[in-house]
Amino acid sequence: MTSSAKTVQSLTPAAIQAAYDLIQPYVHRTPLLTCKTLDAIASTPQSPEALVGTPFEGQTPATPNFRFYFKCENLQRIGAFKARGAFHALLRLIEERGEGEVKRRGVITHSSGNHAQALALAASTLNVPAYIVMPRISTPSKIAGTQSHGAEVIFSGSTSVEREAVVAEIQAKTNAILVPPYDYFDVICGQGTTGLELEAQYAERGSGTLDAVITPVGGGGLNAGVATYFSDKPQTRVFGAEPSFEGADDCRRGLQAGQRVEKVSTLTIADGLRTPVGVLNWEVISDKRKVEGVFAVTEEQIKAALRLVLERMKVVVEPSAVVGLAACLFDEDLRRRVDQEGGEKGWDVALVLSGGNTTVEAIGKLFG
Amino acid sequence: MTSSAKTVQSLTPAAIQAAYDLIQPYVHRTPLLTCKTLDAIASTPQSPEALVGTPFEGQTPATPNFRFYFKCENLQRIGAFKARGAFHALLRLIEERGEGEVKRRGVITHSSGNHAQALALAASTLNVPAYIVMPRISTPSKIAGTQSHGAEVIFSGSTSVEREAVVAEIQAKTNAILVPPYDYFDVICGQGTTGLELEAQYAERGSGTLDAVITPVGGGGLNAGVATYFSDKPQTRVFGAEPSFEGADDCRRGLQAGQRVEKVSTLTIADGLRTPVGVLNWEVISDKRKVEGVFAVTEEQIKAALRLVLERMKVVVEPSAVVGLAACLFDEDLRRRVDQEGGEKGWDVALVLSGGNTTVEAIGKLFG
Repeated sequence: MTSSAKTVQSLTPAAIQAAYDLIQPYVHRTPLLTCKTLDAIASTPQSPEALVGTPFEGQTPATPNFRFYFKCENLQRIGAFKARGAFHALLRLIEERGEGEVKRRGVITHSSGNHAQALALAASTLNVPAYIVMPRISTPSKIAGTQSHGAEVIFSGSTSVEREAVVAEIQAKTNAILVPPYDYFDVICGQGTTGLELEAQYAERGSGTLDAVITPVGGGGLNAGVATYFSDKPQTRVFGAEPSFEGADDCRRGLQAGQRVEKVSTLTIADGLRTPVGVLNWEVISDKRKVEGVFAVTEEQIKAALRLVLERMKVVVEPSAVVGLAACLFDEDLRRRVDQEGGEKGWDVALVLSGGNTTVEAIGKLFG
Repeated sequence: MTSSAKTVQSLTPAAIQAAYDLIQPYVHRTPLLTCKTLDAIASTPQSPEALVGTPFEGQTPATPNFRFYFKCENLQRIGAFKARGAFHALLRLIEERGEGEVKRRGVITHSSGNHAQALALAASTLNVPAYIVMPRISTPSKIAGTQSHGAEVIFSGSTSVEREAVVAEIQAKTNAILVPPYDYFDVICGQGTTGLELEAQYAERGSGTLDAVITPVGGGGLNAGVATYFSDKPQTRVFGAEPSFEGADDCRRGLQAGQRVEKVSTLTIADGLRTPVGVLNWEVISDKRKVEGVFAVTEEQIKAALRLVLERMKVVVEPSAVVGLAACLFDEDLRRRVDQEGGEKGWDVALVLSGGNTTVEAIGKLFG
């Protein structure tokens, strides 16, 4: 058994519950929203013409019924679920190594995105020094956002080799403890609390069955954490979704080939999902009992879903957040399954809107 | 006493409560959201440089404290508070004239905006025919939106003379009953339920005092209705806000001159606020005991406020919705008042986010 397989044995629903107990004072209980308009749109069969040029061309469009529950992690602190994992990782470090040591050494990570801001926020909240290595070409608003939480930003080149070199350099000087963005036990447990929380909120609404949960898959921490939480609740299927552009669907391709894809180079508009799935996360996601499948969606499908969430739900999300909705709208394999297994009643599906960190300029560029 | 002054005597908090009792099954109880980031931004003094070129140049910037409560009518049915007035007007018509007559004659209005969709929805819900006269140049999405609620859309020219001619023509044929968009007793009472609802939601949060409510002012129905509701609650001040571009601040100018401005021709980006204040609404808004003042904001200030709501609150609103926030951010007269009257504690301010009907293309055009 590999060491990662062993670690995965400790990834249990109880570990997610323990993480939740620890982070609850520090994170928002984000709302679980419904939207009848989006239910109606997704529950309308696609036209046969819409399938032309897709893998589903020539099929009779499925007639599924969807009732969506949107878990709004775009309204989470720092605007993304990443706050959960960062707070959990840091609180555990303090618990395990003592406050004195963690405060003396500080924490370090490299990220150009939401994990950087999340760790900066957690560190400033808990009075721990944070060093964030960001590529020099990061957007100024993200650099400013990270600095505004009191973290020290150190610039690097853009490749992972260049970034890791700078991390090593800073660690040599400061002895700061590395908190990786997704492939890390305590981060996965933190992200998994998203699943725990949405299930509780769904249960508060009544006595239905949550048929499925779909999360975006980038590094896979969110999906692996949520799948871990639901691993003893077989009535709720867990799926992942990712962009297909320039091979960003590394997880789906890996599942098909029976082997993790280690490298990805894509500029998909879903910029939070450009990384390959981590080793630990792969162990969870490739376990059919935990994750039933991963769907891939095109850039145009992401844009169509993004438009619907912005214009109809009136909620601001980043492109990465809507890949699950895009799969429900456009993937005939998924739609047929909902049709066949859900019957007349259809499925209650929770979609994790993972983040909302975008700008009006970026929206303008996508749709201009 | 003019006939409008007499009608205004019937505009009482009890009339708003009665409207609420009637429309409650048909409208959403929209959320009242808070946002610490926006509180912090608005509670930061402007820099002296930021005041250069404004009417406040040379003043020492005020140091107010704001706690905002955002009433999210962008999440109302059809995406705007207009659903309240339209449902109320139609339900009253049915109550007063009988279902048979109203269903036989139908209702008619002219509008290119949210009132059109609101009346179309109310009519389709209550099985009443609706005729909506829209300028031929209306955006296709608004025409489609109105038609999707089952209303018959009839096109006209863009001037009010042309539109009214088409209304008269349709009325001659159908005898349809006119439901004006804002200058109409039952519509005002419906819009006023926004105030009733937000006050109840504010009270549920604790025992504070709601110091002020600010709503956008276009035709003035929302502001007059809300001010009517708070007219017997002197601890809560009511203000209006409107754009200044090309004279769109007709209400503020009218208050200064002591006389309603009857005509406005502006292409402000706050396209819901291009109309002059109606006669009935003027009677309410020009009553100092009901509305303490109206603030005017520039196009750039509206854009800055819009960016904050989209990027920081992660909520989609149309430009018209944020004029109240823009006043809080940039109007030194208001900010000084909060500073002086609110002291260290500052003010709890409810801002009505009046609507969210925009498109990703429109956002792109504003910030592209």
